[in-house]
Amino acid sequence: MKRNAKVSTAVIRRLPRYYRHLSELQEAGVVRISSSALGKSMGLTASQIRQDLFCFGEFGQQGYGYKVDSLKEEIGEILGFSRGHTLVVVGTGNLGRAIIQNFRFSGNGFQLLAAFDVNPAVVGTWIAGVPVYHADGLESFITKHRVDVGMLTVPIAAAQQMGDRLAEAGVKGIWNFTNYEIACAKRDVVVESVHFSDSLLALSYMISQREEPNRQEEDP
Amino acid sequence: MKRNAKVSTAVIRRLPRYYRHLSELQEAGVVRISSSALGKSMGLTASQIRQDLFCFGEFGQQGYGYKVDSLKEEIGEILGFSRGHTLVVVGTGNLGRAIIQNFRFSGNGFQLLAAFDVNPAVVGTWIAGVPVYHADGLESFITKHRVDVGMLTVPIAAAQQMGDRLAEAGVKGIWNFTNYEIACAKRDVVVESVHFSDSLLALSYMISQREEPNRQEEDP
Repeated sequence: MKRNAKVSTAVIRRLPRYYRHLSELQEAGVVRISSSALGKSMGLTASQIRQDLFCFGEFGQQGYGYKVDSLKEEIGEILGFSRGHTLVVVGTGNLGRAIIQNFRFSGNGFQLLAAFDVNPAVVGTWIAGVPVYHADGLESFITKHRVDVGMLTVPIAAAQQMGDRLAEAGVKGIWNFTNYEIACAKRDVVVESVHFSDSLLALSYMISQREEPNRQEEDP
Repeated sequence: MKRNAKVSTAVIRRLPRYYRHLSELQEAGVVRISSSALGKSMGLTASQIRQDLFCFGEFGQQGYGYKVDSLKEEIGEILGFSRGHTLVVVGTGNLGRAIIQNFRFSGNGFQLLAAFDVNPAVVGTWIAGVPVYHADGLESFITKHRVDVGMLTVPIAAAQQMGDRLAEAGVKGIWNFTNYEIACAKRDVVVESVHFSDSLLALSYMISQREEPNRQEEDP
């Protein structure tokens, strides 16, 4: 498969959405879809879809659209599904626990190996089949099991320190839920942060726009 | 303030990031910043920054950069901070509880009024100062308190039904954590979904790209 060397962040961000939409289409029994129909369901134009997918090679056939299952598989391949990525969770408070219990790691190509915490009440227990170890053993576990990603759900005060420890121990990526912008000294470690506030503020903007006409009437 | 009618989704998505970066700069004591320095810290070009902000009017002075505090305030205004948006949480499992306890709603211009659940063990209790009511009272509460946004942290099986109830009851937006694409019959209700998998898959892509050379050596 041809891959253009330089793929923009915007395209990378859209790839998981393509995967998600194609999975839903597959479940709904759709076999083929045109770029315009796929675009419509994703809020993109047909030409944007064609441009995005062109970054990764030739998909689909002029006039026949895309085969849903094979396009989904190809995109899954690009996203690294077949690489057998491994992950550990650092921090098993409410958020860590919620994600361990509800998030389908395997459905996203990840194997969740273990969780770490310092709280004696949880160390030595299991959460949804995942063992919880003491954080003291984090580095040796990462080395031994060649862990790819550390998910950070620790309190904000511990974020940078635990991020440093994960990076030093050799993970390739940090999935950061701490709402703290981790500065990673090791340049080859990718930090992906989930910012709940970015999402709520985008929603705030969108509902404010809809309020605009009324507010103007109220306050001329 | 001049506002161009049509602002692209990409720009809307960047606005909360601007706000976040400007808050950090403000905390670090930065008074003025050039578009190139702001761009560098956000991974954008100076011209992209100027274009983005131009959508909302004239900010900054040629050659003097942006005043951090007033730009932050203006963007906060655009994002709807001063509108006094209100929110209720529907579903107080681990995820709902984690967000109620840790997320700074007020720091994002939202007032969290109440939470709703059906579990008798939590109905009637308080989580971090927030009362938990029975979901039966959701509609009357929303009407009475003019709730703007319903945050959905219910199990996936209840997602569509609770989304419908929120929309029918008159919320303007749904902040959806259920990993289910809610189809909103009421066209004026904005659904903003937080997809953890989109974030993990983007991370998976980025670490896979870094692995690429090695894997190719292993498997020529």
